[in-house]
Amino acid sequence: MSTPDPAPSVTLSREAAAPLAEQLAGRYAEQIRRRLLSPGSRLPSIRDGARRHRVSASTVVAAYDRLLALGLVEARRQRGYFVREPAAPARGPAGTGPGPAEARRLLLPIDAATLMRGMFQAPDGPPMPGLGTLPAQWLDAAMLGQAVRRLGNAREIGALGLQYGEPAGDARLRAALVGLLAERGVAAEAGQIVTTVGATHALDVVTRALLHAGDSVLVDEPGWSVEYARLAALGLRALPVPRREDGPDLAAMARLIEAQAPHERPRLYVTVSVLHNPTGGSLSLPVAHRLLQLAQQHDFCILEDDSYAFLAPPHRPRLAALDGLERTFYVGGFSKILAPNWRVGFVAAPRARVDRLIDTKLLSTLTTPGLAEAALAHCLEQGWLRRHAERIVLRLDAARDRCVRLAQAHGCRFATPPNGLFGWVDVGCDTERLAQTLLDQGWWLAPGALFHATPRPTNLMRVNFASGQDPAFWQALARARDAEVPAHIS
Amino acid sequence: MSTPDPAPSVTLSREAAAPLAEQLAGRYAEQIRRRLLSPGSRLPSIRDGARRHRVSASTVVAAYDRLLALGLVEARRQRGYFVREPAAPARGPAGTGPGPAEARRLLLPIDAATLMRGMFQAPDGPPMPGLGTLPAQWLDAAMLGQAVRRLGNAREIGALGLQYGEPAGDARLRAALVGLLAERGVAAEAGQIVTTVGATHALDVVTRALLHAGDSVLVDEPGWSVEYARLAALGLRALPVPRREDGPDLAAMARLIEAQAPHERPRLYVTVSVLHNPTGGSLSLPVAHRLLQLAQQHDFCILEDDSYAFLAPPHRPRLAALDGLERTFYVGGFSKILAPNWRVGFVAAPRARVDRLIDTKLLSTLTTPGLAEAALAHCLEQGWLRRHAERIVLRLDAARDRCVRLAQAHGCRFATPPNGLFGWVDVGCDTERLAQTLLDQGWWLAPGALFHATPRPTNLMRVNFASGQDPAFWQALARARDAEVPAHIS
Repeated sequence: MSTPDPAPSVTLSREAAAPLAEQLAGRYAEQIRRRLLSPGSRLPSIRDGARRHRVSASTVVAAYDRLLALGLVEARRQRGYFVREPAAPARGPAGTGPGPAEARRLLLPIDAATLMRGMFQAPDGPPMPGLGTLPAQWLDAAMLGQAVRRLGNAREIGALGLQYGEPAGDARLRAALVGLLAERGVAAEAGQIVTTVGATHALDVVTRALLHAGDSVLVDEPGWSVEYARLAALGLRALPVPRREDGPDLAAMARLIEAQAPHERPRLYVTVSVLHNPTGGSLSLPVAHRLLQLAQQHDFCILEDDSYAFLAPPHRPRLAALDGLERTFYVGGFSKILAPNWRVGFVAAPRARVDRLIDTKLLSTLTTPGLAEAALAHCLEQGWLRRHAERIVLRLDAARDRCVRLAQAHGCRFATPPNGLFGWVDVGCDTERLAQTLLDQGWWLAPGALFHATPRPTNLMRVNFASGQDPAFWQALARARDAEVPAHIS
Repeated sequence: MSTPDPAPSVTLSREAAAPLAEQLAGRYAEQIRRRLLSPGSRLPSIRDGARRHRVSASTVVAAYDRLLALGLVEARRQRGYFVREPAAPARGPAGTGPGPAEARRLLLPIDAATLMRGMFQAPDGPPMPGLGTLPAQWLDAAMLGQAVRRLGNAREIGALGLQYGEPAGDARLRAALVGLLAERGVAAEAGQIVTTVGATHALDVVTRALLHAGDSVLVDEPGWSVEYARLAALGLRALPVPRREDGPDLAAMARLIEAQAPHERPRLYVTVSVLHNPTGGSLSLPVAHRLLQLAQQHDFCILEDDSYAFLAPPHRPRLAALDGLERTFYVGGFSKILAPNWRVGFVAAPRARVDRLIDTKLLSTLTTPGLAEAALAHCLEQGWLRRHAERIVLRLDAARDRCVRLAQAHGCRFATPPNGLFGWVDVGCDTERLAQTLLDQGWWLAPGALFHATPRPTNLMRVNFASGQDPAFWQALARARDAEVPAHIS
């Protein structure tokens, strides 16, 4: 199924002034510096490296020697070459480098850090299939800028920052959010809404307000591994629940809860109910209903992340709607539809918990930026955001169709029905190795290992429908896959 | 020393339509709702209440009965009336209300929450002596608005949000901060600077990156109690070190460290070295030098909060300058000089720790708002902020002189030499009771109990020089004090 096109060799050039070994070493050094290759990860074997980069084994040896000399990698007897941990400060005291206690603490899932950093690579490059947002080219650059200008003259804009804003957030924005939530079937008063620095901050505030180190939390698996990383960094214990197309596997969830000692039972379940990342599935009404019964029975709260709401068909069931915000904390944001770096999100919460959330917000950032919230309120009030979202959904539908056809034509299979922004694709070979190979060719992927609480080899990867439409990418993928899997070659 | 002026009775009016008891109950209900009276705190005795509000005992009884009926307070046999904890959700399950495990967690120092909320009261009222920032009227409303408009047309402004910004923060801003830090003697490269949502977020990110629940932290006492509250909320154990005019009491600090079991020794010291809040003192060069020696000897890091830098004379010693950012994390912000709700801060960190800080920032808020950072960069580049700060310092000098004279004329004594934005004043009676009395008259104070890791009765309070210039305030204070202290009456 591979195509006969020659590989677009963006990596190494025999015509370049620098020797091949130096080019290869430079490419790896850059990946290590950017943490696309994370500390502790293994470089390809000499043989694999030679095959992958179409150079001789001695070129790879020379490149690795150079990396050794730079202190970027270390050789481990019989095992190969590994990326080194970052150096401790040259003159720093022993204890400011990782000691035994700190070493444990540094065990942020490295892959999540790698993934996060991947989100911010090469902002001027072409959109990558592993991207977590809509490409900037799809967004409306002028909308928020116009909203800012409508807020008034320089004095009026500046005045928005002159005093700490309301602890719960801009009153106009919260009023507008009441209307937005009503459209999604969620009945909330303005007094139940707290604004944050994007949905990520909302998730962080709720988690910190409800839990403390050592508590356990139910999470979807596969899921968004930055969420796993945040929970781990807070000292929380993630209990992964298999995610199916229509929601969590409730039988597995119940068994998992009952397997915990009574005082170690989970106090919270964090989930994306609509257009789940990475599978694209949405919670069905019956599963939602039974999930809330289970939550009542075992007395845990729910943190519902609805970041993809604008990309979903209307009237998908939300837990917050069924539950009436009794035990559900509903989180939303605008990064996936409007502007990733505007950084405004919110949480709608049970009434009795709002004060606690506000206190936690104040301890983490004090208030939130008044200008960004006022401009967003204007976009909502004027209906600009709604019209923009309608256009985006139509365009995304077309892009999804095209991307699905390309993927299938290149031997890939969708593990779940394609929906929303992301596809969950079985490519037929281990995607972590594949991601490394394609990175060498300039393609940034999101391999499936990054969506598991405990990384494991998997043939799945997440593809962004909006940025996965370049036939050259699918050709490169098929070629790399066929080189990995001998059966495809013969 | 009290003045003969009659009390400005802003509280109760015999001419109002509502009966006095209803007015009084309404006033208390409002304070409870705003959490200016925190859950668990005791209302004045019937006799005290009658004296304070100049009404009959039966009016106070009727008011308290009304609060009882509203469920806002509870009567405890032989002990009086207390503000109730917030109600659990009406239909919520048992475990979503505070259970035994959660009750512990809710023990955020209530006074810190009260103080924080006090910072955000009545934005349109007159500036209060307890205020934590410069009054909005002192700030330059047009400066940041002009900077926003200089960033370009609507499309160019909107484009600042279209992609996640750099994880470390806006590159132009970080370059401008290198220059700002150099003026303060701190040599940092742009690669050592990470931007945040205000200085509060910077403190939070550093603490989360370096410590985990159960660790101990050295703090100044007195100090900023929101900092104590954040540490407590993260499950950290604060070890208070007496703060003297020229810095921490190093002998006490050494004793405190040595009194801990080896594995429980502090890993971090959080301090404001210049214009310390609330005492106004600044670290001397010899104390700074010996402090760094102690840090090396006991192997802890330092989190230096320099939020008041713009209000300080130049060339005050900074730990980050002496230390060369080896074990010092240097935090700054712009809320105290430019605009509290612009929400841009930063940390300059040891090189080997920067990646870890960026990861922690990403887990808490992802990136930071691009528009706010770009506008601030413009203000720094153009020298606007420097000229503004020079004007503010001159105006603050004059305000301080006037405030000091007023305070002294009304029988108050400064516990430390007046400097910067805050005075640390001995008023001659317990300031927590005084704060309650003056709140009834419409004055918001910052009593000394709010600046202690463990609240205790104290005659000290913090006064904001810029907003403490109203003679009526000092007259009201002296009158209330003299009513509290019988010796002054006779």
